[in-house]
Amino acid sequence: MTDDPTTPPDPPVTRRGFLGAVGGLTVGAAAGGLPAGLVARPSAAAGVPTDPAVEPFYGEHQGGILTAPQRHTSVVALDVTTERRDELAGLLRHWTGLAADLTAGRVADPGRTSPDSGEAVDLGPARLTVAVGLGPGLFGVDGDDRFGLADRWPIQLAPLPAFPVDAMAESDSGGDLVLQASADDPQVVFHAVRQLLRAGAGITSIRWTQDGFDETAASPGTPRNLLGFKDGTANPTSAADLDRFVWAGPEAPPWMAGGTYLVVRRIRVALDRWDAEPVASQERIIGRHKASGAPLGRTAEDDPLDLDARQPDGQPVIPADAHVRLASPQANWGVTLLRRSCAYANGVTAPSGGGGPALDAGVLFTSFQRDPRLAFVPIFRSLASDDALSRFTSHTASAVAAVPPAPAHPGRWLGQALFE
Amino acid sequence: MTDDPTTPPDPPVTRRGFLGAVGGLTVGAAAGGLPAGLVARPSAAAGVPTDPAVEPFYGEHQGGILTAPQRHTSVVALDVTTERRDELAGLLRHWTGLAADLTAGRVADPGRTSPDSGEAVDLGPARLTVAVGLGPGLFGVDGDDRFGLADRWPIQLAPLPAFPVDAMAESDSGGDLVLQASADDPQVVFHAVRQLLRAGAGITSIRWTQDGFDETAASPGTPRNLLGFKDGTANPTSAADLDRFVWAGPEAPPWMAGGTYLVVRRIRVALDRWDAEPVASQERIIGRHKASGAPLGRTAEDDPLDLDARQPDGQPVIPADAHVRLASPQANWGVTLLRRSCAYANGVTAPSGGGGPALDAGVLFTSFQRDPRLAFVPIFRSLASDDALSRFTSHTASAVAAVPPAPAHPGRWLGQALFE
Repeated sequence: MTDDPTTPPDPPVTRRGFLGAVGGLTVGAAAGGLPAGLVARPSAAAGVPTDPAVEPFYGEHQGGILTAPQRHTSVVALDVTTERRDELAGLLRHWTGLAADLTAGRVADPGRTSPDSGEAVDLGPARLTVAVGLGPGLFGVDGDDRFGLADRWPIQLAPLPAFPVDAMAESDSGGDLVLQASADDPQVVFHAVRQLLRAGAGITSIRWTQDGFDETAASPGTPRNLLGFKDGTANPTSAADLDRFVWAGPEAPPWMAGGTYLVVRRIRVALDRWDAEPVASQERIIGRHKASGAPLGRTAEDDPLDLDARQPDGQPVIPADAHVRLASPQANWGVTLLRRSCAYANGVTAPSGGGGPALDAGVLFTSFQRDPRLAFVPIFRSLASDDALSRFTSHTASAVAAVPPAPAHPGRWLGQALFE
Repeated sequence: MTDDPTTPPDPPVTRRGFLGAVGGLTVGAAAGGLPAGLVARPSAAAGVPTDPAVEPFYGEHQGGILTAPQRHTSVVALDVTTERRDELAGLLRHWTGLAADLTAGRVADPGRTSPDSGEAVDLGPARLTVAVGLGPGLFGVDGDDRFGLADRWPIQLAPLPAFPVDAMAESDSGGDLVLQASADDPQVVFHAVRQLLRAGAGITSIRWTQDGFDETAASPGTPRNLLGFKDGTANPTSAADLDRFVWAGPEAPPWMAGGTYLVVRRIRVALDRWDAEPVASQERIIGRHKASGAPLGRTAEDDPLDLDARQPDGQPVIPADAHVRLASPQANWGVTLLRRSCAYANGVTAPSGGGGPALDAGVLFTSFQRDPRLAFVPIFRSLASDDALSRFTSHTASAVAAVPPAPAHPGRWLGQALFE
């Protein structure tokens, strides 16, 4: 609805008020005052009750990073096809207004003449978050500084190197812009992506997308991935660890203060071969017990990972090639990253030589970190060469992006400091 | 767990009791008695409380037909690669035991040596239903009566003819077996499909699959599809209409008593072109108001569809090429069918001549009917040639199947009467 958040928006219309606004059958919803109790917008004012279905949009960090995991996520990588800096900045302004409206559950029109597509009417905000990342291509990675941003290129935002597990089409790698939309309702996620893509029509082109689902909200404790194991144990959570491992530090350019760096990978798992592996073997590959999530030889999920523990015969309790060992901070110079992975299922793979079609499913690995060159890249380089799990995985899509801070308040827009 | 439901199953283990059964860390869950209140299995016995998260498996009709719509659905079409009748019957027996366990929230082992893959632990039954359909290929459609079932072929189960809107690869059409798994949790659906596919390893091959989502449970009233319109209004609901339009009648072979016929189509919608269409134009194409769902010229969703209403200038209020007119019973010799469609989103299409990649999304159209030759086929033939909506749609996957009745009680198996 607001394509320039610096001007006051039109009176807000809630998605739940769409009938009144569009059909003219009821009154009140569009008349400036929201129907009481239907949609509360996030507010920084103390004492103002907030709707638990609304995640804040404005603030220090973008949503979808520290937000309690939502059930559905869509990642969209786009190429920017315009060469005009003002059009790129205008798109980020437009997305800011759209994302602010969408996350608050207000009808968000992609353009002043282009109405909301309507499929999210009555669905509420559903804890929607929209995060926007900026890929290396915006900063002149190929020597063409098309937007005049090369002098603001964060050194942390390097294109990812190739890995032995890579099995991706060129078209499924990279992206000038990366969107992550997450919510507890799949149709709310789709709707948000759809309006954002419509706003980019003519100046962007979709490069690749991936939807995922997460069972977090449906069960207690750490969710299980499609390997059947708990996934996400031992993420950094304290403010000190987040500052140390997740948020951009003083080594990043000032416009990234409060931001972070996203690395997303679609990791296909050969589930048929995995399922044929005995559980005891799966546990040695992962390094944790399948049922409890505890490190091998321990009983509780949050028991510490003792990489030095030995069996009576002198062999390590957690094998040398176990996934948790190689991914651990202890094996990576103390470095870790914030994982926010979910499952994906894309139907079946094309039949390949020797085999029939199989399920194309696995992990939509999403990570946020202070510097991918010191986190994702070395960790995954180690995993790709030594991890016992890598026999079952192939990476079929990839992107890296700088995720700037959230707009501090209405009137500011995503990435504004980059362009100022 | 039970690959022969005629023998008493092992003591049941709940998915919520997986920790106890597999990890050996807790006791009780596997010891015959279920933890009180955790999982109640469906029971025909009067007075036994049932868990609202458990949909019945045994009975007159299979689940997922009249079941209140669930949030997530997966359709899987398979080819049967064995030529042995006993292996086909054995698979249906095995699936019966698996489906009974899965829908009750019990751990369902694909084979006695092959444990559950584990990703649905703690997720509960989530209203899972599993429906199994039998495609024409099992009955000697190509002249090869490989299973000796040709004399039991229902005349209603004819391969579908080609339609002008067809745009499907040969590999996305048909299937000897069709599974529909639906639940309120996407990981429960994936898990169920995965165990069923594992049970079929070596004697089946996946042909095509499609996942879908439905917003029904998230909002009041009829859900909206990705066109932004309410979808599913005016489905048959009365027992008389269900007998007349949905359940197999006396003209069907006796083994289909209580069964129905499934036609499923993946219908891609050109959402970019649809979104560029003004709402008033969209409403003329559909024949209903977008906001309310009411027929054009009326105010309430359940107002009757008056196809004879005229505007002052003599033009029909509901245009001659409106979707609802052409799909209505009035335009189809009084015939209707039970629709159970949901939305799908498969990322982006491959770039085609002239256009860049676009969202591959639309409707997973699922219908149940007494005779597809008198319902789906003529209705869609009419729609494909005259429907204003067909300018925006293409059909990219298809299957037809006979859906036999549910097993009446434990000890019976899906399709058993066909083989007796």
